Amino acid sequence: MTERVPIVENILSANDRLAQENRACIDEAGVFSINLMASPGAGKTSLIEQTLSRLKDKLRIAVVDGDIATSIDADRASAAGARASNQVNTGGECHLDAVMLHGALAQLNLRQFDLLIVENVGNLICPAEFRLGTHTSILIASVPEGDDKPYPGMYRGVGALVINKIDLLPYVPFKMDYFQRGVEALNPGVLTFPLSCRTGEGLEAWIHWLLGNVKRAACLF
Amino acid sequence: MTERVPIVENILSANDRLAQENRACIDEAGVFSINLMASPGAGKTSLIEQTLSRLKDKLRIAVVDGDIATSIDADRASAAGARASNQVNTGGECHLDAVMLHGALAQLNLRQFDLLIVENVGNLICPAEFRLGTHTSILIASVPEGDDKPYPGMYRGVGALVINKIDLLPYVPFKMDYFQRGVEALNPGVLTFPLSCRTGEGLEAWIHWLLGNVKRAACLF
Repeated sequence: MTERVPIVENILSANDRLAQENRACIDEAGVFSINLMASPGAGKTSLIEQTLSRLKDKLRIAVVDGDIATSIDADRASAAGARASNQVNTGGECHLDAVMLHGALAQLNLRQFDLLIVENVGNLICPAEFRLGTHTSILIASVPEGDDKPYPGMYRGVGALVINKIDLLPYVPFKMDYFQRGVEALNPGVLTFPLSCRTGEGLEAWIHWLLGNVKRAACLF
Repeated sequence: MTERVPIVENILSANDRLAQENRACIDEAGVFSINLMASPGAGKTSLIEQTLSRLKDKLRIAVVDGDIATSIDADRASAAGARASNQVNTGGECHLDAVMLHGALAQLNLRQFDLLIVENVGNLICPAEFRLGTHTSILIASVPEGDDKPYPGMYRGVGALVINKIDLLPYVPFKMDYFQRGVEALNPGVLTFPLSCRTGEGLEAWIHWLLGNVKRAACLF
């Protein structure tokens, strides 16, 4: 479908300009921001819940949830202690884009927050093409998805990789070494956080990393 | 991004016309054809391997694999006994469309086959929008993805639902009744095949259903 390319390129370029505006707003407010991406069911909402339960008394956290139709995830984030939980209904679109995040940010007073978590639509392909303006993108892979799925476009662009559901390692044919070597080839030096949102194992390292980044973002302005 | 809608509608309408052409070719050849869709890691390639190992001596099977970059899946289908295994590299596109399938069919002599399996790109959102011209679409859900993920657009359009990885039911919080009630609400009466590609449990019903449809397709012409 090569005839689509020029149209898509124009959309992406407009998107990138707005992503820069989003970043400027976020930086001025001294907020650290992440864009969480994953397949459906890999554990985006669970990771947000576990993060909130550990940090809600230390940090003021806002969550922006992208979903094609429902508000189930935003409701879960509110219940878990997010100070603000904003639902972006993408109207069927398979990803968030900078326009949608811009609209969501306009409804938040960013200066009242320390950490902004954007939960992208459950999709391991399309969200990689649309920058939002967050400081970094986090990909959540999950052990039962298998160890042979490093989709290059998605893995290359992320700042850190969460490997969720390590409690299932005894029950599925997932070789952690093999998976991590594949990831390293695509994104050399990328941080990885093997953990289980279900048992809590491995979450300390993730929380420690988040806290460090939140402190740095607050110091910059 | 409402400005994209008219363009997308034109593309979809052109796609549907070509899907009808694909269907006519498939029907004339007396082949039964399915479009397999799922998240990455849910088990599309594993289901194809298990299906081939049970049917390769009874049926002549062609596999068309859509992938954004690699040929790993097509190679696995060949190794498992597909008489033809065609790789469609989507060049980064997040779904197969009727144009891509049309190109793949042009390289096959369909009359030499009984069953055509199209493996779509691993994505639970976008492939639902693009008809290919196959007789039916099969969605593979997988137990560790959780029981709260019936994405409406995808679940409404499929002819059957495979629920893979039931061997993991003891280890994850997945309520089969709850999940199936959600599916039934979105797609009343849809066939479901709970199974495990790893242990082989439940595969007989899937194979039986496929065989029945292959016989019917062959009788029609």
